[in-house]
Amino acid sequence: MATDFGNVRDEIVPLVTQITDDLKQGAIDAFRETFLGLHNYDQAQIYLNLTPQLRQQVIEWLTLDELANVFDHLDSDEVDVNHLLEEMSPSYAANMLNEMYVDNAVDVLDEISEPEQDIYLKQMSREDAGELRHLLDYDEDTAGALMTTEYIEVSQTSTIGQVMSLVKKAASESEQISYIYVLERKRLIGVISLRNLIIHPDDELVSEVMTSNLVTVLPTEDQEQVARLMADYNLLAMPVVDEQNEMLGIIMVDDIVDVIEAESTEDYGRLAGVNDLDLEESPMMSVIKRIPWLIILVFLGLGTASIINSYDAMVQQASVLAVFISLITGTAGNAGTQALAVSIRRITLDEKRSVIRMFFTELFIGALIGLIAGTTIFGVVWLWKSNVLLGLAVGLAMAIAIMVANLAGAFIPIIMDAMHVDPAVASGPFISTLSDLTSVIIYFNIAGVFITHFIGH
Amino acid sequence: MATDFGNVRDEIVPLVTQITDDLKQGAIDAFRETFLGLHNYDQAQIYLNLTPQLRQQVIEWLTLDELANVFDHLDSDEVDVNHLLEEMSPSYAANMLNEMYVDNAVDVLDEISEPEQDIYLKQMSREDAGELRHLLDYDEDTAGALMTTEYIEVSQTSTIGQVMSLVKKAASESEQISYIYVLERKRLIGVISLRNLIIHPDDELVSEVMTSNLVTVLPTEDQEQVARLMADYNLLAMPVVDEQNEMLGIIMVDDIVDVIEAESTEDYGRLAGVNDLDLEESPMMSVIKRIPWLIILVFLGLGTASIINSYDAMVQQASVLAVFISLITGTAGNAGTQALAVSIRRITLDEKRSVIRMFFTELFIGALIGLIAGTTIFGVVWLWKSNVLLGLAVGLAMAIAIMVANLAGAFIPIIMDAMHVDPAVASGPFISTLSDLTSVIIYFNIAGVFITHFIGH
Repeated sequence: MATDFGNVRDEIVPLVTQITDDLKQGAIDAFRETFLGLHNYDQAQIYLNLTPQLRQQVIEWLTLDELANVFDHLDSDEVDVNHLLEEMSPSYAANMLNEMYVDNAVDVLDEISEPEQDIYLKQMSREDAGELRHLLDYDEDTAGALMTTEYIEVSQTSTIGQVMSLVKKAASESEQISYIYVLERKRLIGVISLRNLIIHPDDELVSEVMTSNLVTVLPTEDQEQVARLMADYNLLAMPVVDEQNEMLGIIMVDDIVDVIEAESTEDYGRLAGVNDLDLEESPMMSVIKRIPWLIILVFLGLGTASIINSYDAMVQQASVLAVFISLITGTAGNAGTQALAVSIRRITLDEKRSVIRMFFTELFIGALIGLIAGTTIFGVVWLWKSNVLLGLAVGLAMAIAIMVANLAGAFIPIIMDAMHVDPAVASGPFISTLSDLTSVIIYFNIAGVFITHFIGH
Repeated sequence: MATDFGNVRDEIVPLVTQITDDLKQGAIDAFRETFLGLHNYDQAQIYLNLTPQLRQQVIEWLTLDELANVFDHLDSDEVDVNHLLEEMSPSYAANMLNEMYVDNAVDVLDEISEPEQDIYLKQMSREDAGELRHLLDYDEDTAGALMTTEYIEVSQTSTIGQVMSLVKKAASESEQISYIYVLERKRLIGVISLRNLIIHPDDELVSEVMTSNLVTVLPTEDQEQVARLMADYNLLAMPVVDEQNEMLGIIMVDDIVDVIEAESTEDYGRLAGVNDLDLEESPMMSVIKRIPWLIILVFLGLGTASIINSYDAMVQQASVLAVFISLITGTAGNAGTQALAVSIRRITLDEKRSVIRMFFTELFIGALIGLIAGTTIFGVVWLWKSNVLLGLAVGLAMAIAIMVANLAGAFIPIIMDAMHVDPAVASGPFISTLSDLTSVIIYFNIAGVFITHFIGH
């Protein structure tokens, strides 16, 4: 049976067959040569796509360190890491986790339950387990949860030559060596980039070369904010410090790229009313995730239905009113969704604006969009139904419904943000269902004014 | 008058007042000491927030190179760069563009019109201008448009010691030195990371140390795909090669972070029916961008209205039918929007799936969601209106409308992708307006079967 190597780069595909054959035929040397010649990410993709039996062979044939490199490059969010760990003995798995870069080991452990975490942590030394437990304690989506405690630190009284030999020793151990951090009594006082390190003569002092104007974050900082700072300042690594400026760890740029992708997928899904959008989930999981919002909105929609119901006498007199319900609710909902997206994005990207200025801006935008859409529909309805007052009622209702939906779309996220609720929770479906309600009230009230002119239409 | 330093970090704010005062009082030394002590990004933010007059002073007081550093850290997408360049003489601006990193200079020139580009390019040497023109030719959003031609190249017969002294010389010129590329007759054959460089002894040969298994992209590659590869392989820089594997340039990770942010903002806006979401635009621009979609959808909505109109006789007989129109169209639209977001995201993140498998998956999801929502509404309507057949009609219509909307939401992006149209163009408002149309057809057809039982309700 051919395995489905869906996520493996095209260039690697021929090697995959060779590696599988080597594994099956017990050709350890050939396997090691091909496999270890690959980039760790490709190794990880191939590892994932092997049968459990062949993975067993890989575990035997790789050293602990080589296997840890593979696991360092798994996307632990998207892979059933628990299952993969269970293919090894608990002590072997614990040793391998120990060999991994600390931040990646934490990512793996974060995906499994606490009792399962304990299985592995208990096999580790008290110190190693303590470090991992400490990092696991940070809230998900914060700087603390992203950071690693592996970085190079020096004192400001060292010479560049001394630092260089330290870096050479540390280079094979540390995940990143782009920056060397200067600490004094645990406090972060400066940074030297590797680039600056190599261009300065050996006898210069760290204190002369280091930059002391630092961009740092607290461990509680939201990961999106960290991402934004690293992007703005073009940093390859961001130091995490506590309130006393004591160095806690660093966050690396490659983890930040993953964060931005994950956050944008999350925000994207939420805008459409899908919490926790996960492309790998089972159909059943998709249903479970999509149904709650939908059912809540059904009940909100019933509110709209009951309002229409209360105007039943009007509809009985002029059934033409029913014709334009969905047009008005739909268009107002669309305008509200547009305003919502802009507003959420503005808050997410931390573009602070005066609320009063925004109110008048959105009022203006809503009024103008309402005027244009309302006038269009006034003309169309007038021509279609040869009834200028019906056109006027529908057009006016649409204009006002759009203005209201636009303001709601713009301000609901702002109000949520002020109440410390993530504004991205407000979705397009929510705003359009909510605006259905306001739109039908506006529509029937305006229609009521002109009702005597529609009867029989 | 205090200037509004909205985008400047809180830590920098006290320095801003000092810098402004120094500029006003002609205190050149004090200004240079404070300003040059700041991170380039902070310098750029402060520069942007000064009055044109004070910027003139900054231009005079900084060297060309120092000013180029400031411009290297402007976000040229979001800033009126043309205006900033016009504050200098054309020859000074040209010299400054020449001092900038090539990729950033291209980003700046990309934002201004061709005649304006020519003003500056004509002031440069033929060679410099040619390089910039060449890079400006690449399509926006491709690898070619993102890359810089400034990278360090060595031959495989060099020793590590030779490379190291080359790197030391290049370090102050090149934007990135994390990787050194090994070329043979212009073709890329290997790479050495700076980290590997410093841990290997001086007398080793490049050919012994370099990695020859490389991840590269063509200049025509889409920037999102580049971003994904760099994230997967944890690369700090990505080499761009032509089809003969000749090295053209490199793309740096910090530019990729910006790309991901920009692409996610774009996709996000589109989902809500806002093309080219721009947080800095004027209210008038917002209206101009939002109105076309809205008007197109109004006409699609008129299609729905005319369908309802064609069932006018039914509504006249049973006005209760009007009550549930918005509930059914709304809920189906919501389900369609959910399916749409998942489908677009799947295509964007290049999660390839069998279309047939997806069809049955989405059919199952739609059927189950439809069943749950339909049953709920059946119960509610039955109890509310004490009419089991009305409940059945509304519930059944909702279930089928949801199934159809769900399939449409899932497959419209797939069809668009197959037709080489960016699936992200399909928006939530579009899918919900489209599903309004199918939903009312389904609703009235089902209601028609039971119509005799609703009359008078």
